[in-house]
Amino acid sequence: VNAVELIERKRDRGTLSGDEIAWLIANYTEGTVTDYQMAAMAMAVFLNGLDDEELAAWTGAMLHSGAVLNFASVDAPKVDKHSTGGVGDKVSIPLGPIVAACGVAIPMMSGRGLGHTGGTLDKLESIPGFRTRLTPDEFAAELAETGLVLAGQSDDLVPADRKLYALRDATGTVPSIPLISSSIMSKKLAEGLNALVLDVKFGSGAFMPTIEQARTLATTMVGIGAAHSVKTVALLTRMDTPLGREVGNANEIRESIEILQGGGPDDLIELTYALGAEMLVLAGLAGSIEEARKRLGEAVNSGRAFEVFLRVVAHQGGDVRYVQQPDLLPEAPALHEIRAGSAGYVTVCDARRIGIAAMRLGAGRERKEDTIDPGVGISLRAKPGDAVEPGSLLASLRYRHPARLEEALRAIDGAWEIGPTPPPAFAVVAERVD
Amino acid sequence: VNAVELIERKRDRGTLSGDEIAWLIANYTEGTVTDYQMAAMAMAVFLNGLDDEELAAWTGAMLHSGAVLNFASVDAPKVDKHSTGGVGDKVSIPLGPIVAACGVAIPMMSGRGLGHTGGTLDKLESIPGFRTRLTPDEFAAELAETGLVLAGQSDDLVPADRKLYALRDATGTVPSIPLISSSIMSKKLAEGLNALVLDVKFGSGAFMPTIEQARTLATTMVGIGAAHSVKTVALLTRMDTPLGREVGNANEIRESIEILQGGGPDDLIELTYALGAEMLVLAGLAGSIEEARKRLGEAVNSGRAFEVFLRVVAHQGGDVRYVQQPDLLPEAPALHEIRAGSAGYVTVCDARRIGIAAMRLGAGRERKEDTIDPGVGISLRAKPGDAVEPGSLLASLRYRHPARLEEALRAIDGAWEIGPTPPPAFAVVAERVD
Repeated sequence: VNAVELIERKRDRGTLSGDEIAWLIANYTEGTVTDYQMAAMAMAVFLNGLDDEELAAWTGAMLHSGAVLNFASVDAPKVDKHSTGGVGDKVSIPLGPIVAACGVAIPMMSGRGLGHTGGTLDKLESIPGFRTRLTPDEFAAELAETGLVLAGQSDDLVPADRKLYALRDATGTVPSIPLISSSIMSKKLAEGLNALVLDVKFGSGAFMPTIEQARTLATTMVGIGAAHSVKTVALLTRMDTPLGREVGNANEIRESIEILQGGGPDDLIELTYALGAEMLVLAGLAGSIEEARKRLGEAVNSGRAFEVFLRVVAHQGGDVRYVQQPDLLPEAPALHEIRAGSAGYVTVCDARRIGIAAMRLGAGRERKEDTIDPGVGISLRAKPGDAVEPGSLLASLRYRHPARLEEALRAIDGAWEIGPTPPPAFAVVAERVD
Repeated sequence: VNAVELIERKRDRGTLSGDEIAWLIANYTEGTVTDYQMAAMAMAVFLNGLDDEELAAWTGAMLHSGAVLNFASVDAPKVDKHSTGGVGDKVSIPLGPIVAACGVAIPMMSGRGLGHTGGTLDKLESIPGFRTRLTPDEFAAELAETGLVLAGQSDDLVPADRKLYALRDATGTVPSIPLISSSIMSKKLAEGLNALVLDVKFGSGAFMPTIEQARTLATTMVGIGAAHSVKTVALLTRMDTPLGREVGNANEIRESIEILQGGGPDDLIELTYALGAEMLVLAGLAGSIEEARKRLGEAVNSGRAFEVFLRVVAHQGGDVRYVQQPDLLPEAPALHEIRAGSAGYVTVCDARRIGIAAMRLGAGRERKEDTIDPGVGISLRAKPGDAVEPGSLLASLRYRHPARLEEALRAIDGAWEIGPTPPPAFAVVAERVD
């Protein structure tokens, strides 16, 4: 086998064998297949695709480029959730404790925000002291004890993906269904799961603008899960409007705590319970979605879910007083309000514009090396369907630097549209793929 | 402008502007666009192509990545010939002196052999002392004095092509019409020509197996020439059978000298005169192909063409005694003969197999770093149309090492086919593209 021969085959729409793909990824990880060869291969895959067998092999080769976790000492079924990313998407933070309180073990490895989408790790770090880098031993001990870990991916998992992702970022080969799905699935499969629930978003604030593209990505990832004997279900969910009412970091933790205490906005409750119910059923801890929803509700109403969250925060070095009294969480001092100019119904509250505005305030990263300001963010006060009058509050922006507010206001311009009639009501969850 | 944006555009079948292409090639030459970015771009170009304007701009950007020659002090029209490469293709060696003897200045920069095709420089170096690396001053002085230079490309010409060609070789992006044609044409246009004649070969021993592919390549290169105001004509010529009767290095010089002295095999004469006549007409030194052929014949018959060759050899440090007495040229001592097993007519004498066999003997390079043995090679004694009996001589192989002969015989096995009737006669020149 040599790299040029494999590149030529894929260039000419041929098929690579499992052994050839394993050789390619292993040698790329070691560096004997060069970056420029892998760049040519990535472009050939981008343009000519991978079939189902190639994709399962590619994902498996990535997965086995590093350590693969195996929490054999944890008896509970191990299930995780992955979201393709959105604006105001803090679902992991309430979902983890609620589902763990029902008996599922969740070895959740999350990422950081980039561009207009936020990251779970950044949000959690709003809690003073919270550590998202854990040693393998700390990770395993916490999973056994609380049933939930909320951490970053450790460096020894899927090194091929880190290397390939950086290369794709520099070579125009990011938005490829096979490359995205193998990247996501290799990282999740390395967690040693029994099952996985995927939240595949579509709409202005999502990576995939249309439901058709989201469906293709979801179907592809579910297929990879099946090929690796990990039961996988995907929900296709709308991301035209931010999820919940808070976009930022500390403010998203506050909203997550509301959910854990039985409150919070409807769309966020809907999505958290929809994903959680799938996890419980896949874990074998509920016979139906209805039964699962009931058990999730009990975990919240009994206070057990919030209790799990407190224990996780304490375990990971966070100051639990900030969770018990969320008003202590950081909040930037300056406030700017955006108000409606006309009467009617909000028809659009654009996730992408609002996500970019939050990033400009300092809640997200334009570049990987940017730092996050946990206290800035956007609180939405009018979302699609809400009636407004001239002067009604649409959103409050917490900011620290006037120059950044200026940039945020430029980005958010046109995010709201107001019409004479309410838009059709819609469910956050549009479809299910299994 | 940034590289990723340009890669994404080409990936998505968009069009790059002339300025963008100039930026890309200049920054790749300098190294600020990386090898892996150019590899992704090369694969995108391979799969999605370049339109005519993009291709002219790409070629121009390559051309201007280094020095561009300008022989303003040479009054004669400057015309060169380029061949896409074949087996036994020594045409440049007699063609250059014959056409120069008619008043054309030919700043010919040739290449070395790789794989089954030979290289003009390697053949010339069979003449003891012959130097193919000349300084720019030597090159210009010789062109002014003899009207012909037979040298390698100087390092300061088209550095982008050297870098890009090495990258394409390692990334499976060599056989792309736009990348091949811009590579060839940028190097030829850097010679500061008034006109150019292309010999685009097709068949088993050529880079392009079919006439359709050769026609596409020829049309593309003629278009690039026109876009750069260099009159360009291409002949599509057959390369199923080696050209002439000698395949090697010193033996090809001997056959070239035969042509210069009015002898030599018919197919080699036909092609040399066909290309030379196009050069004379493009140079404005003959009003028609017929007139041009007449002048070429006079240059040979008068001895002027051979005289030019002697002066070029002397100028470039070669020992002219080896040209005056070609028997002095190196010849390996051991001889192996291949003979016909049956009676009939030769229907096939396969260029590719014979080219590979010559390479195995040591007349060519399997890898760039291999060295050439000038005295080994193959002399063909039966070509398509020739009648043979059992035991008739098909070819003589001159070799130095029995192990290499073994390899050559394995490669040449099946090169001849003998049938009951002669194959249809064909002309070497199949089509003309202008």
